[in-house]
Amino acid sequence: MTLAEKLAQLGGYWDRATSAPDTAEQGEHQDVAPLQHAFDEAHRPFATVIENGLGQLTRVFGTAPVSPEEGVKALRSAQEQIMSASRFSIPAVAHEECLTGFTAYGATVYPAAIAWGATFDPSLIERMAAAIGTDMRSVGIQQGLSPLLDVVRDYRWGRVEETIGEDPYLVGTLGTAYVRGLQSAGVIATLKHFAGYSASRAGRNHAPVSIGPREFQDVILMPFEMAVREGQVGSVMNSYSDLDGVPAAASAELLTTILRDRWKFEGTVVSDYWAVAFLDLMHRVTSDRAQSGAAALVAGIDVELPEADGYARLAEAVASGELDVRYVNRAVLRVLTQKARLGLLDPGWEPVPAHTGDGTAINLDSAHNRRLAREVAEKSIVLVSNDGVLPLNDRFAGRIAIIGPTADEPRSFLGCYSFPNHVMVHHSDDDLGVDVPSLLDGLRDTLPFADIRYEQGVPILDPDPRGIDAAVRAAGEADLVILAIGDLAALFGRGTSGEGCDAEDLSLPGLQDQLVRLVLKIGKPVVLVAVTGRPYALGQYSDQCAAIVQAFMPGEEGAAAIARVITGAVNPSGHLPVAIPRTPGGQPHTYLAPPLGHHSDGISNLDPTPAFPFGHGLSYTRFAYDELRTSAAQMATDGSVTVSVRVTNIGDRVGADVVQLYLSDPVASVTRPVRSLLGFARVELGPRESCTVEFTVHADRTVFTGADLKRTVEPGEIVLAVGHSSTDIAESARVHLVGRTRNVERPVLTTPVRVRRSAGR
Amino acid sequence: MTLAEKLAQLGGYWDRATSAPDTAEQGEHQDVAPLQHAFDEAHRPFATVIENGLGQLTRVFGTAPVSPEEGVKALRSAQEQIMSASRFSIPAVAHEECLTGFTAYGATVYPAAIAWGATFDPSLIERMAAAIGTDMRSVGIQQGLSPLLDVVRDYRWGRVEETIGEDPYLVGTLGTAYVRGLQSAGVIATLKHFAGYSASRAGRNHAPVSIGPREFQDVILMPFEMAVREGQVGSVMNSYSDLDGVPAAASAELLTTILRDRWKFEGTVVSDYWAVAFLDLMHRVTSDRAQSGAAALVAGIDVELPEADGYARLAEAVASGELDVRYVNRAVLRVLTQKARLGLLDPGWEPVPAHTGDGTAINLDSAHNRRLAREVAEKSIVLVSNDGVLPLNDRFAGRIAIIGPTADEPRSFLGCYSFPNHVMVHHSDDDLGVDVPSLLDGLRDTLPFADIRYEQGVPILDPDPRGIDAAVRAAGEADLVILAIGDLAALFGRGTSGEGCDAEDLSLPGLQDQLVRLVLKIGKPVVLVAVTGRPYALGQYSDQCAAIVQAFMPGEEGAAAIARVITGAVNPSGHLPVAIPRTPGGQPHTYLAPPLGHHSDGISNLDPTPAFPFGHGLSYTRFAYDELRTSAAQMATDGSVTVSVRVTNIGDRVGADVVQLYLSDPVASVTRPVRSLLGFARVELGPRESCTVEFTVHADRTVFTGADLKRTVEPGEIVLAVGHSSTDIAESARVHLVGRTRNVERPVLTTPVRVRRSAGR
Repeated sequence: MTLAEKLAQLGGYWDRATSAPDTAEQGEHQDVAPLQHAFDEAHRPFATVIENGLGQLTRVFGTAPVSPEEGVKALRSAQEQIMSASRFSIPAVAHEECLTGFTAYGATVYPAAIAWGATFDPSLIERMAAAIGTDMRSVGIQQGLSPLLDVVRDYRWGRVEETIGEDPYLVGTLGTAYVRGLQSAGVIATLKHFAGYSASRAGRNHAPVSIGPREFQDVILMPFEMAVREGQVGSVMNSYSDLDGVPAAASAELLTTILRDRWKFEGTVVSDYWAVAFLDLMHRVTSDRAQSGAAALVAGIDVELPEADGYARLAEAVASGELDVRYVNRAVLRVLTQKARLGLLDPGWEPVPAHTGDGTAINLDSAHNRRLAREVAEKSIVLVSNDGVLPLNDRFAGRIAIIGPTADEPRSFLGCYSFPNHVMVHHSDDDLGVDVPSLLDGLRDTLPFADIRYEQGVPILDPDPRGIDAAVRAAGEADLVILAIGDLAALFGRGTSGEGCDAEDLSLPGLQDQLVRLVLKIGKPVVLVAVTGRPYALGQYSDQCAAIVQAFMPGEEGAAAIARVITGAVNPSGHLPVAIPRTPGGQPHTYLAPPLGHHSDGISNLDPTPAFPFGHGLSYTRFAYDELRTSAAQMATDGSVTVSVRVTNIGDRVGADVVQLYLSDPVASVTRPVRSLLGFARVELGPRESCTVEFTVHADRTVFTGADLKRTVEPGEIVLAVGHSSTDIAESARVHLVGRTRNVERPVLTTPVRVRRSAGR
Repeated sequence: MTLAEKLAQLGGYWDRATSAPDTAEQGEHQDVAPLQHAFDEAHRPFATVIENGLGQLTRVFGTAPVSPEEGVKALRSAQEQIMSASRFSIPAVAHEECLTGFTAYGATVYPAAIAWGATFDPSLIERMAAAIGTDMRSVGIQQGLSPLLDVVRDYRWGRVEETIGEDPYLVGTLGTAYVRGLQSAGVIATLKHFAGYSASRAGRNHAPVSIGPREFQDVILMPFEMAVREGQVGSVMNSYSDLDGVPAAASAELLTTILRDRWKFEGTVVSDYWAVAFLDLMHRVTSDRAQSGAAALVAGIDVELPEADGYARLAEAVASGELDVRYVNRAVLRVLTQKARLGLLDPGWEPVPAHTGDGTAINLDSAHNRRLAREVAEKSIVLVSNDGVLPLNDRFAGRIAIIGPTADEPRSFLGCYSFPNHVMVHHSDDDLGVDVPSLLDGLRDTLPFADIRYEQGVPILDPDPRGIDAAVRAAGEADLVILAIGDLAALFGRGTSGEGCDAEDLSLPGLQDQLVRLVLKIGKPVVLVAVTGRPYALGQYSDQCAAIVQAFMPGEEGAAAIARVITGAVNPSGHLPVAIPRTPGGQPHTYLAPPLGHHSDGISNLDPTPAFPFGHGLSYTRFAYDELRTSAAQMATDGSVTVSVRVTNIGDRVGADVVQLYLSDPVASVTRPVRSLLGFARVELGPRESCTVEFTVHADRTVFTGADLKRTVEPGEIVLAVGHSSTDIAESARVHLVGRTRNVERPVLTTPVRVRRSAGR
């Protein structure tokens, strides 16, 4: 291959002609990637770009509302042009976004990733991802830009909704399940954002990350390591941010030493959109675009997305000897290896699978998909508090005031990477492309005998108080209030949650806190339904609510899922993947803190204890734990131990519990979290039914990065505890690690679980 | 010396018998050190402790209200007992707190350290510290536990008032001046808290610090390096917090490798009070107190304060060989060397200087002191905004409503380490020990013809709205409103600012924001006087104030200083050592951020731009800059360049300006702050008078910690800019650094300044 042919394999092409026009004179950009409009001038025509081939086709389906049939036609045509324009007839990898489902017109919108976290159900997330991958594959897509494995460090960050939560093991386990599911359908998954993005200063998008090497390894990198080593993921995308001054996009330590040398990653590293350009434009660690390209390539970014920009200017640097051509060769080899594995180089390869006919209708929102979307939604909803008002009898015939802006806004169920909120919102206010019933619809269906009255109260974001009086009146005249508050996801400041929609504090957006306070003042029983992408400071009034239901952006089937939880048709089983704070300030926060990161009476006046902790979630039945046993009182520092506990449904309804195993390391050579999640199991049990959950804990699972920066398994006492949440511990056992201190480069990362059914007591 | 005699030199003794009794049954501790009450049981009688000698005597004057004469008597008696109890007759080093002046009954209370920062005047701070040292030395004290060189990273932290601001060069320069002043009087200064304390999570006292090695070196360590290498400081105290998991008190890297091997520090390292115990109690990196003692000693803490606890249990570890006696010897040698240098081992040494007679009155608040306190206060007050309402003619005879809780609370002028707020508050509500006029007193004195009416409005902290109506009425009936809001410093949650008094956000404490809003609504001209220890979010209403005066806890002479600024008897010259934020959320914040740490339109909806930036401060005259010249357009990476600028007072009043020189490094191999303070000069000029300020900038002053973690001076372009603040830049010049990239272990740390007077234009 010529140098030009090689470089062509390292870039993407994005046809933005069909996207919504900016009204930039009012400063109103409709960007779906940061500063997208700033790159319009550099955009070159397709025919020019593909002269020597093309690495990637960017978002053929995900840029504008095209029907699946139009998309297939456009993709087929583009691939044919690419193959005929160049000597080797190598097609491009076609990639799309797929975080809440395939980001395409008419495709199923599943719950947001933070809701997957609430299910604690890896096999369900794997099935969901397989369904997403199957749809993408059927229309000719080979790569999906999901999942996010960023571990939440500050609830104010707009992208919290896109993460799986604040615990690295939960994120890593569900993220790996997603990778397995998507890749089982022949679509390469892409881990993002590698790494550290979630720890940006004050939760502001792209802001600098202050973090040390221990926290980085033990918290931030851990889920990525799981998905690389356990999930065999095919692609990784860099983080936009810098880490203690070094942009991830220019970090060979991160993209090569850790990812490839240590973890043996063999796929491709792709740049986040314009992250290469940001090296000179925002980080200013290079002085021009070509230097940015060279820096990123040398560090280990193989493919520049969404378009070749820095990488389109590398020929001169290679010619002048400034850039060693071996870095180009290294990246090309990875790209071509991936294309070969995908079958793109096979004779007779077709841009779109043969069974996807042109002209025939393609359904990207099948009944199967909707059932799956419903199942994820139902299992993700968290019953946070309940004084007994729930479940509401579905024959309830009293007066219900449904109040609040998310009750009649189906878009509030959808994440910022859903097609309706990501793209469609710029084209049509009404057409979401898929059917998304509102919560009001769902409650009316589920409570056919109730006398339902709706008042919005306040908009989601605008500080318009005019509807408050009517809402308060409606509350006063009702027997029960269902108060639905929360977020509307969008991009770059156009919503209350999502990429570029960060929060200064954790007050509810707009005047919603005021609405809640005034409605609660009336004294009627209030069921607060929080439809949000991040946790908000509900602790301010949680005691005054009869019940709180937390729905993390539950997707297109969210309405029925919430309504069925409210009536008890579904017994809630979601658990919090992030804490719900008491107060709006006090961020950043994580439960993964040593003692001084929690409340320290006599040291600080501030008490960061959340209103509801990580792992918390109620059910309409109750579960009890007993007979916690460990297979041994000690284990070698390279050994393992099994921990079993009996779980019993002591109520009178079928329900599902999330059994959580926590590790404490009371004394260690560096500070350790008071408690961290070591394993979990989701079990469904009938009334008075029991089962035994057995965790196999390898000593490696206690690993931490020591004072010498080596990953260390240290002898000494640990505590293994089973609880209903990270603070509600039921049973615990002490185990002694014995033997020498071990340094481990590739520790065992998982805690296998077995569930043994047994007879009821 | 026997082992017991050696260990005795490594600990302190604190006579807490005279301190105020706790009412601990109500959870009401009157601790002046964190968790002090938890250590009461371990306290041993003096006679037992001193059997083998004693290293340090803790706060003989600073624990309870004793007159200087009683203190001298107690100190003399204690030293005599120590000397006679042991074989070698070695006295203890007597240490006291001295941050806002000698923390003793009746001693001058100078402005808080954050106010020193606002003066930008190292020679004034050196004079102040010399006066403090002279008083301490005169009553037998050899060591003072000041200054703090913590660089502010989060305005919510309670100890912001104790710091010198958010810029390491400002902190290092004024901190070194303080060290020189105190030590010139024969009192050893103590740098604290080494290091990283100010970056605790969410600004909570002692919370974990997430920080990487580059930020740590370039921001946090820099002022300490200045005070060690330039100031020859005699003692250093550890930080309580952990750094990325490693407690500073157990970090040999920090306390030995960096401090001694690299910086050549030769004094003693003392523990912060109970920081040794906190290794097992809070950090849990050791399993008992003896282990904590060994860990701290090995890391490099020589003396345990306030009492020997961990260090009192080391004999067994030495006997068993667990602890190598050479660590004990190392510490003892340092302690004895220091005592020798202090003259404590000289024949005829007296516990108290001969000229301090018993029985004779000792004045710790002399007229000289008060003049100095006044000068620091006057130079520290920042005129933040002014629509022309100020200065107020001192013959003003209209109606003035003075409103707000800090107007009639002189304690609001005093820092948390002032004796009145630190100790006296537990003994008497009325007696402060020194005369501290209130702002109301000061204004009545300074505006003798005005018709002044006072309304508190709201208390400082209690959310009691009952006084608001009267305050609003008073505002309505006045010609002018002076609205005094702010903090009351205390310890561990008993105040709104100070150690253990952290804030969740930057709203004013209690209902003060509400008071401000309602008073502003009346529409009368409002002069807002912020008497605070941290910056608050005044940006919410700054546009509506006729003027804003920021007084950072200005000490016992604060009232006259503020009043004289208001009337123009003093032309204000303070500049902000921290920014004043627009909004209460969005912390942590620092102006020392690369581009993505500032506002990034199109990337995050949040705009962290402060209401008033670092370095800002107005005057009743105006200053203009021109003729910025550099001695060369390029300098070698080991060379230097001079930058000169002409400053002209273009108004018609004498005034003082702070000329600020900033560095920008537009392209570097790691991300760099958009702008950072490189040098400054305070110059006083008459009307139409000019001078030329010349800075000598060594290439080392551009040093940063590179991607390889080496301190690096990199060739390339830099920008040297002179401005009125960190964002209001008047003149700038580009200079090229040429030659090879240099790694420097001990860079030049200062930017020398010369001021040349010239004729007026």
